[in-house]
Amino acid sequence: MTKTELLYEGKAKKIWRTEDPSLLISEFKDSLTAFNGELKSSEEGKGALNNEISTELFKYLNEKGIPTHFVDTIDENHMLHKKAEVIKIEVIVRNIATGSLSRNLGIAEKTVLPFTLVEFDYKNDELGDPKLNDQHCLILNLVNNTDELDYIRYMARRINKILSEFYAQLDITLVDFKLEFGRDKDDNIILIDELSPDNFRLWDTKTQEKLDKDRFRQGLGGLTEAYRQVLERIKNR
Amino acid sequence: MTKTELLYEGKAKKIWRTEDPSLLISEFKDSLTAFNGELKSSEEGKGALNNEISTELFKYLNEKGIPTHFVDTIDENHMLHKKAEVIKIEVIVRNIATGSLSRNLGIAEKTVLPFTLVEFDYKNDELGDPKLNDQHCLILNLVNNTDELDYIRYMARRINKILSEFYAQLDITLVDFKLEFGRDKDDNIILIDELSPDNFRLWDTKTQEKLDKDRFRQGLGGLTEAYRQVLERIKNR
Repeated sequence: MTKTELLYEGKAKKIWRTEDPSLLISEFKDSLTAFNGELKSSEEGKGALNNEISTELFKYLNEKGIPTHFVDTIDENHMLHKKAEVIKIEVIVRNIATGSLSRNLGIAEKTVLPFTLVEFDYKNDELGDPKLNDQHCLILNLVNNTDELDYIRYMARRINKILSEFYAQLDITLVDFKLEFGRDKDDNIILIDELSPDNFRLWDTKTQEKLDKDRFRQGLGGLTEAYRQVLERIKNR
Repeated sequence: MTKTELLYEGKAKKIWRTEDPSLLISEFKDSLTAFNGELKSSEEGKGALNNEISTELFKYLNEKGIPTHFVDTIDENHMLHKKAEVIKIEVIVRNIATGSLSRNLGIAEKTVLPFTLVEFDYKNDELGDPKLNDQHCLILNLVNNTDELDYIRYMARRINKILSEFYAQLDITLVDFKLEFGRDKDDNIILIDELSPDNFRLWDTKTQEKLDKDRFRQGLGGLTEAYRQVLERIKNR
């Protein structure tokens, strides 16, 4: 399968059409952005690490029965996946309060939440990804009904349980993460996008060291080294 | 019943204790603020108009079976009401998109919404009243369970139906409004706060003229004249 036409270029990925209209190729870029694009950089090797980590996690979730868009890895920076109509909701799953949740709602950093919080943000860069309630999702026609939102919340919690346990075995705490969902050709809602430390806050359980994009956001350095450590722990499990 | 001790001073009201521990007095002030306190002013007579309009609407809602904190009007600027433990949620009810909804979610001004939207904002000036979903309300301990949120949404929609029909008869369109709820001594959730054009967007149905605090927010002038017109239409119905 080869790239034919560039369909979309995002902040961290290019999406390409292929000869098969039902399949796309994601090309993982080394570029990094934060704070809605205000902070920009590039880290050599970051794209390949995200591709490999995402591949491992998509395969693991597929084994556990979670429907995803993943089909195959092509090479270092390219993943083959199903074409899906993107649901324009960023699904944020939080186990521990940090970042924008702590800032916006005044919840102390590192508070373990009484239950896993699932939030919906409008996937809209121009508007700064504002927070949505269920009714907003209907009014904006992002889904067809609230049952779909309940299903997305249910899947987000299942994925959280599977990946929290997966990472716990690697001495990594899954703090929070962002998921995206889409509709495949049969209108099934499936997990899409990527599952990388760009979108997952991962803390070393023993040292509390950050192994994710917060190293970039907070100017801590050592980003690719941290991502590589995540990948090595995954592969050596 | 007379004022004893000042319990709280807000942007538009002072709340006083009385000889009866179960009753409070609200004193309606002439001061006006907008944009989370960034814009400030005062309009002579505004407090008295809000007291009188609120009184009319509380009485009307009570007649229709809506439980509220209203007990009696004392004088021009003072209302006697039940003491209630404030639920720190601003309940926003919207029939037509305007203001922050249009700005934040990119919905064109004056779009009639496909259904009445009920939003919850965290009543917290310091944090700028951020938007909440149901799970946030639980995590912040603002309510005891999601059934209470469902009840609040149900009451907000009932109040919207009653007041939309009430205002329609006066050739006024009820665009959107903010409600607050509290718990009385028996733990009933009741409607509290005020029901004035400070918190209700009211448009003249024929001329589309604004008869609410947007006259102040948008520097249109004629605020008390507009509020007086609302009161006169209510009294002459």
